[in-house]
Amino acid sequence: MSNRKATVYVRLKDGVLDPQGVTIQRAILNMGYDMVSSVKSGRFFELEIDAEDGDVEARINEICGKLLANPVIENFQVEFEK
Amino acid sequence: MSNRKATVYVRLKDGVLDPQGVTIQRAILNMGYDMVSSVKSGRFFELEIDAEDGDVEARINEICGKLLANPVIENFQVEFEK
Repeated sequence: MSNRKATVYVRLKDGVLDPQGVTIQRAILNMGYDMVSSVKSGRFFELEIDAEDGDVEARINEICGKLLANPVIENFQVEFEK
Repeated sequence: MSNRKATVYVRLKDGVLDPQGVTIQRAILNMGYDMVSSVKSGRFFELEIDAEDGDVEARINEICGKLLANPVIENFQVEFEK
């Protein structure tokens, strides 16, 4: 059984408001640093995968679309290692 | 004024419980996929930086330790582009 690692990055789609990012950008400004002009927030998930067949990538993409990201407002990107 | 981008990755330290990751791993199992043996969750922040001097990296590290990560339970890693 092969052992692989995948990292899934979930970002808000362009045009979707990111209140967490805006709040952090303001907080950085309030700390006295004026060089950060924009902050975008995102989530990532590191998955350990035990699988034999070559169909893993399709299934991981399925899991992302159904569970890890909200496809209405978020995009995801999967990077496979090994 | 130069324009740079930095991405900050925030992960839980080894040994710190990750209930979100455990819950997602179980949910994947309940969806009928048995090939994901572990899930670790993390956050990332994409910063746009307007700065002239070369001291930016030190200041970004300061911001991470004070604001973006909780150094008691989290590690952060900064990647600069451009």
